[in-house]
Amino acid sequence: MARINEHYLNLKGSYLFAEIARRVARFQAEHPEARLIRLGIGDVTRPLAPAVVEAFARAVAEMGRPETFRGYGPERGYPFLIQAIIEGDYRSRGIKVEEDEVFISDGAKCDTGNFQELFGRENVVAITDPVYPVYVDTNVMAGRGGRPREDGCYEGLVYLPCTEENGFVPPLPPQPVDLIYLCLPNNPTGTTLTKEQLKRWVDYARAHRAVILFDAAYEAYIREEGIPHSIYEIEGAREVAVEFRSFSKTAGFTGTRCAYTVVPKEVVAFDAAGRAHSLNDLWLRRQTTKFNGVSYPVQVAAAAVYTPEGRRQVKETIDYYMANAAIIREGLSRLGLRVYGGVNAPYIWVKTPAGMGSWDFFELLLRGAHVVSTPGVGFGPSGEGYLRLTAFGRREETEEAMERIARLELG
Amino acid sequence: MARINEHYLNLKGSYLFAEIARRVARFQAEHPEARLIRLGIGDVTRPLAPAVVEAFARAVAEMGRPETFRGYGPERGYPFLIQAIIEGDYRSRGIKVEEDEVFISDGAKCDTGNFQELFGRENVVAITDPVYPVYVDTNVMAGRGGRPREDGCYEGLVYLPCTEENGFVPPLPPQPVDLIYLCLPNNPTGTTLTKEQLKRWVDYARAHRAVILFDAAYEAYIREEGIPHSIYEIEGAREVAVEFRSFSKTAGFTGTRCAYTVVPKEVVAFDAAGRAHSLNDLWLRRQTTKFNGVSYPVQVAAAAVYTPEGRRQVKETIDYYMANAAIIREGLSRLGLRVYGGVNAPYIWVKTPAGMGSWDFFELLLRGAHVVSTPGVGFGPSGEGYLRLTAFGRREETEEAMERIARLELG
Repeated sequence: MARINEHYLNLKGSYLFAEIARRVARFQAEHPEARLIRLGIGDVTRPLAPAVVEAFARAVAEMGRPETFRGYGPERGYPFLIQAIIEGDYRSRGIKVEEDEVFISDGAKCDTGNFQELFGRENVVAITDPVYPVYVDTNVMAGRGGRPREDGCYEGLVYLPCTEENGFVPPLPPQPVDLIYLCLPNNPTGTTLTKEQLKRWVDYARAHRAVILFDAAYEAYIREEGIPHSIYEIEGAREVAVEFRSFSKTAGFTGTRCAYTVVPKEVVAFDAAGRAHSLNDLWLRRQTTKFNGVSYPVQVAAAAVYTPEGRRQVKETIDYYMANAAIIREGLSRLGLRVYGGVNAPYIWVKTPAGMGSWDFFELLLRGAHVVSTPGVGFGPSGEGYLRLTAFGRREETEEAMERIARLELG
Repeated sequence: MARINEHYLNLKGSYLFAEIARRVARFQAEHPEARLIRLGIGDVTRPLAPAVVEAFARAVAEMGRPETFRGYGPERGYPFLIQAIIEGDYRSRGIKVEEDEVFISDGAKCDTGNFQELFGRENVVAITDPVYPVYVDTNVMAGRGGRPREDGCYEGLVYLPCTEENGFVPPLPPQPVDLIYLCLPNNPTGTTLTKEQLKRWVDYARAHRAVILFDAAYEAYIREEGIPHSIYEIEGAREVAVEFRSFSKTAGFTGTRCAYTVVPKEVVAFDAAGRAHSLNDLWLRRQTTKFNGVSYPVQVAAAAVYTPEGRRQVKETIDYYMANAAIIREGLSRLGLRVYGGVNAPYIWVKTPAGMGSWDFFELLLRGAHVVSTPGVGFGPSGEGYLRLTAFGRREETEEAMERIARLELG
């Protein structure tokens, strides 16, 4: 008799964005005339950059000719893309990354979701709270989460509350942990850490032989000087940190699909006998066994992001989104709301008015302003009383959303 | 202290194709002048069909315009592709499949590798021997394989030997099993089963409440009448079988990446209390949590396979490969070798001459004929004494490979 993985039964309800989609669909069915403005899910709206489209189309044409057709690609990804990444994202910042430390994939969601497979069930996992739900759910599926408690937490995970009180800076864990997920710039709060703040985490991981899973999917949105773009700017990070990056938010690849993960050869985890094993070796084994690489034309498209035209065009799009972020920050602040993020990140983290619950504020914006947001509590119990808005909308819709919200009776 | 998933330590050596690549690279380094002909790894060589390239390019252009740009797609895949699949691969054969039973992915390797996550560790897994290594390795990584034995088998798996003696038809398991991997047309032996033979498996699964993971990646190569193209041609299969399909070998998508998995709503597995759970629900949860869909232009390209021009062009390519298969079958038979497969499958399964070992015959072909093959033992102990050749080469190279092999002193 086939038996299910019972850890799945511990998962709470449906995945956050599926639940939002369900509520939105219901509202839209009841109000077919309502023109919704979607500032909820972090999906981009600007087209691919012309340099990217041109390279993409060229590679598609290559696939149609026998002499340039490509079948299975190299297991880690094409060297032309890996070299462009190393040069553009690391060497230019004085960071050393080797070619065989970069693994091209079809998404940071997949990579951050799959990477935990390399670790045993007994590891204690720390997550910031609020947090991107994928880190939590994939660990629950693997049996590291245990049962959900009444308060919305899983009994097996260590939550690091990030709130107004601590400036959304995650505190070091109160008990020893083995795996630490950090997302910086943060989704959903938009927080960044200084080098000194991030160094405390690297030092912690080195002292405890823990591994940091560092999600830098929003790195391209950092505007201020002195904020680390990569965890490898911190001394010793190569011994303890894996870094996840994506073209989704950097270059509008949410529907095109390309990302990469850096696994330095120094990062290790241990077996029961205390022997160290290279995570680079284990991830290579995982990926070569369960993954077959990213579409060749997509890899060519991603490499075009690093050309001079690609860089300039992508930067223009990011500027566009960050101008949206400023519009949201200013619009909501003017209404007396307390607003965080949106300076080095495309996410704006809004305190709900008058102690309103996250889902109530979500429903108020949906029904009162026809604006789709993401309730903060969907990211964890410390997200209760907050709401996430994204800067990825169209300019005129972002402006209109602010006007509509301004007409609501808030607080 | 971070601890690794120690099941990984049970994996034997490196993944088969990586080992072959290593040996070939070494030979090529020693003999830079040797012009290798690669009939080993199952990678295609013919370009994408013109109809596919045209649709692909059109969708890439859409991604460059704000009004047609697409971000995240629907979780299961775009309806236009799902509908084309249902119409083209199922309804046309009188098989009922619903839209929410089809899940688009970036590869059957990923899907066959990931699907086992839905099941508990305690399940007993049956595999045919020889077998596509991904089924074995992913179950070993999940802890269902146990330790490797001296004979090359994992102590926790049930092997179903497929040999000359039983005509490569897998025997029913000698002990109760819970999960059964069947690949038909078979990789590596090229075997197909009749409806009656396949029905025995469906009946077994129904009687034992087991689940069949049916890999139909080579369905498009079936030439003979009466061979089932889908397991759902068998009565009752919707209750017990999940079917994996791919565009890789059907339409030359090994470097383009698109596949799909059918999970009928009737297929269930059980929790400890004996309650049935829908695998469709669990797979949806898995995919929405750990996967973010296939590139939109790739999905458009895949849908073009089902247009009248796409079908005709794809069929021409398959005819081309199957003519290669006939050349290999005839060429090797003429040398007195015993040859199987290659009639309803792109794989030719060759008995080594004079009881030679698989790797020895691999080395003989590599060093003597500069032909890259795949040693049968790499697919499991019952593959010892066999070699796999593929029909995916270029015509002139396939012919030359046969000429070179004919000049060897065999047996």
